[in-house]
Amino acid sequence: MQDYIFEQDFVVRDYECDIQGIVNNANYQHYMEHTRHQFIKSLGLDFSDLHNRGIDVVVSKIQIEYKRPLHGGEAFVCKLNVCREGIRYVFQQDIYRCSDMALCTKGRVEAVSVVNGRLALCDEVEKALNVSQA
Amino acid sequence: MQDYIFEQDFVVRDYECDIQGIVNNANYQHYMEHTRHQFIKSLGLDFSDLHNRGIDVVVSKIQIEYKRPLHGGEAFVCKLNVCREGIRYVFQQDIYRCSDMALCTKGRVEAVSVVNGRLALCDEVEKALNVSQA
Amino acid sequence: MQDYIFEQDFVVRDYECDIQGIVNNANYQHYMEHTRHQFIKSLGLDFSDLHNRGIDVVVSKIQIEYKRPLHGGEAFVCKLNVCREGIRYVFQQDIYRCSDMALCTKGRVEAVSVVNGRLALCDEVEKALNVSQA
Amino acid sequence: MQDYIFEQDFVVRDYECDIQGIVNNANYQHYMEHTRHQFIKSLGLDFSDLHNRGIDVVVSKIQIEYKRPLHGGEAFVCKLNVCREGIRYVFQQDIYRCSDMALCTKGRVEAVSVVNGRLALCDEVEKALNVSQA
Repeated sequence: MQDYIFEQDFVVRDYECDIQGIVNNANYQHYMEHTRHQFIKSLGLDFSDLHNRGIDVVVSKIQIEYKRPLHGGEAFVCKLNVCREGIRYVFQQDIYRCSDMALCTKGRVEAVSVVNGRLALCDEVEKALNVSQA
Repeated sequence: MQDYIFEQDFVVRDYECDIQGIVNNANYQHYMEHTRHQFIKSLGLDFSDLHNRGIDVVVSKIQIEYKRPLHGGEAFVCKLNVCREGIRYVFQQDIYRCSDMALCTKGRVEAVSVVNGRLALCDEVEKALNVSQA
Repeated sequence: MQDYIFEQDFVVRDYECDIQGIVNNANYQHYMEHTRHQFIKSLGLDFSDLHNRGIDVVVSKIQIEYKRPLHGGEAFVCKLNVCREGIRYVFQQDIYRCSDMALCTKGRVEAVSVVNGRLALCDEVEKALNVSQA
Repeated sequence: MQDYIFEQDFVVRDYECDIQGIVNNANYQHYMEHTRHQFIKSLGLDFSDLHNRGIDVVVSKIQIEYKRPLHGGEAFVCKLNVCREGIRYVFQQDIYRCSDMALCTKGRVEAVSVVNGRLALCDEVEKALNVSQA
């Protein structure tokens, strides 16, 4: 398995499953969001403080490949990397089930920073994410 | 069937169902909330305007009896009445499936108004809900 | 604080919060369901096995009192007791925030067992829940 | 605006919004799923009947571009097209807000049919979707 810089543990809750007993597709996006927010919190970035100073980081695009479904009660981990591509922050977020570390979903989330209502890079976010480019 | 003063139509979405193919219990609370908000909107009450003037209406207690489960794709209607009991606004919210108007859930939601951080009756809300008492 | 026989730890996920930055009311029901299922699993009861033998345990009534709202990122614990009242299994499920153990919600969930399509007590469930009466 | 072969109307429910008062990103996936299922139902395809005969259609990949956020109470429509690319059924699913028909999200959902546990094209599904190739 490749290296990641952050990970968040979960257990599937039964209400997250649909009639087939497997996690509903949209819930993987919830797992990824929670992992991203915990990651950002771990860096000391404070979204509401940024927001009050006119800086917002928003998701602009998401892509998820569904490889294997998770079932009610299963333990899994969402692992994360982040890099910068031009004006976008790109999060790689992959979910593995804990029993055998099989890859369940591969996710890619693109986010941009909006400063005073305009798309713009934000030094503060870049430094916190450690994605500054040469 | 008794009389109600407001109703909201719905169709069960598959993602609202759990492994048994029936609507997850918590989703009935979502249906009831959406119905209540549509009702309040129909009265011309504007929550964000009230909030900006220091008035909040918050749910303090909820009770739901589950009679018959709804299944994916089924049409249903959430019907509503409201009255006042002392300091509380009490919403009666019952859900019927459309195919035979069988009662699926019986709900009772108590809400209170908080004015400048203190529990208090609010004339404006009372008048809009038409629950003023003699 | 009173004694409980089971508890489950949680952290509020941001997507569980609504526009006021507090947990949406229906989500407390999700927290309570997950806690109940983890409790039942801890007892060794297997719902799908019971189901295959014609035994279902279903929620018939729920009541929640909302005392204090939880906010995004807050740690909390859902504590549980269970007893039997006649034909009903009654779960007391209370949620406390971890920072000061303040009571956030008080919940009461009634469930019944349905054996081969009829309401009936079920020895197996009763023994597992340890709620047999003299 | 381009042509689509199916569309489903919605109104944003307040519980689908997050702290910023806009629809949480994962909920767009729910809207798209509900639209897809309503479309498939309109074609007369019966998933549970197919499933009982060993045929499952599963989502293998999803991509969503977020252009403009939807707010609580806003009416919107999810429009749909479908085509076949090799072994995959590709759904184009775009969401427009009704007030001005501005594009809110652009979605692409890839699904595959699994017949008796193996990836395979399924004549019955192809004909119903009307995506047979020369």
